[in-house]
Amino acid sequence: MEGPQAVREALAAGLVTELFVESGRDHAALLAAADGVRINQLTAAGLAALAETVTPQGVVAVARQRHLTLAEALAGVPALAVVLAGIADPGNAGTVLRTADAAGAAVVVFPDGTVDPYNGKCVRASAGSLFHVDVVRGGTPEDAVATLKGGGFTVLAADARGEHDLDQLLDDGRLAGRTTWVFGSEAHGLPAPVLAAADARVRVPIHGRAESLNLAAAAAVCLYASARALRPPSGESTAQRSASP
Amino acid sequence: MEGPQAVREALAAGLVTELFVESGRDHAALLAAADGVRINQLTAAGLAALAETVTPQGVVAVARQRHLTLAEALAGVPALAVVLAGIADPGNAGTVLRTADAAGAAVVVFPDGTVDPYNGKCVRASAGSLFHVDVVRGGTPEDAVATLKGGGFTVLAADARGEHDLDQLLDDGRLAGRTTWVFGSEAHGLPAPVLAAADARVRVPIHGRAESLNLAAAAAVCLYASARALRPPSGESTAQRSASP
Repeated sequence: MEGPQAVREALAAGLVTELFVESGRDHAALLAAADGVRINQLTAAGLAALAETVTPQGVVAVARQRHLTLAEALAGVPALAVVLAGIADPGNAGTVLRTADAAGAAVVVFPDGTVDPYNGKCVRASAGSLFHVDVVRGGTPEDAVATLKGGGFTVLAADARGEHDLDQLLDDGRLAGRTTWVFGSEAHGLPAPVLAAADARVRVPIHGRAESLNLAAAAAVCLYASARALRPPSGESTAQRSASP
Repeated sequence: MEGPQAVREALAAGLVTELFVESGRDHAALLAAADGVRINQLTAAGLAALAETVTPQGVVAVARQRHLTLAEALAGVPALAVVLAGIADPGNAGTVLRTADAAGAAVVVFPDGTVDPYNGKCVRASAGSLFHVDVVRGGTPEDAVATLKGGGFTVLAADARGEHDLDQLLDDGRLAGRTTWVFGSEAHGLPAPVLAAADARVRVPIHGRAESLNLAAAAAVCLYASARALRPPSGESTAQRSASP
């Protein structure tokens, strides 16, 4: 991985095995957190040769991947989970992972047919969230849906032609329980077996003349509707941190 | 502009002056809508030489730009407006324009310092929404905010350190009136004078461990919170179209 933010998060998660830093730059904060990690000093050119990005900002790291089954991830009794089905674009997948983290989802599943969460571009788009939530890889989306339903989740498929309106579900209190959102690619939508396996297919209302939302926007609206339904009653949320661009 | 979707929308808006289509492909639907437009048949290579994208899908058009002042745009008495302040990335700006359209915003302002809405990448990211909403260009963000406040809008600045929580504003009924959202770049946030000029600075709650949302996700959450507050009472919204990936 590349860049101080991702490396800092991976160090905090105890996953970094080797660190490559550019000589002559100040890496004191990172190095203080790198106890027991092998450190290599490189020239800017040496570092650039290791990196995928044009500007790795002076630091590249090798980290272990965490391998977690869905059953292990569910042992933490999360209230909100996400399945990414057939999402090939690493930037889109990483962005939804970041949004899922912000909305309070604790588990994000990358089944077969979706980009590898450890793809460099996905890691960068996740802005550290790859190390915040339990990321589960592999299996079919249908298997993930079945496991999540068996674990007590209501599984909602985001679908432009869904029979349920998101606002209506929120009004009716139907987002207040343990919920999994399933998102597909903007170009192809969700495969029919995944749509059929979900408990409900949900559309984001379109109030203007746009035909649809892009994946990142639709996922943000759905996940924050769930976050709103799941949040503690007013007055108990003072511990929340808040941010937006 | 390039590709059938954007060209179709521009034709519907009566803005296309000249059309370039690839010989040997079926353009019947587009040509039927191109009354009075000068049509040129080109080879695939000729079309590729005109286009910015690798695959313009057989059609490129020249269209007039609409120039509209903010005062003219406000004559339509819109309920929801957006100001994009200091957003240099055309893909981000186009995506927010698309989301604003979907959420029912009727006016989007691109002041000086923000990318040109007619930038090719912005046009493509807007997925036709450039032709659905009143896009206003130029002036300072502060001038736009002053005009909108004078026009009866409550102006809300999306800000990671805002003193108001989005959910709280929605709970308190403070999103139910005419509202303008101001969004800045993810890297730099909003300039201090714009933050100061807004009626309130609003943060999207962060429930997990992510530091922030990206611009597209934050804008989607803010704009759909407004859409939820502005929608007609339940039972009157049957004319709404709905979609999501």
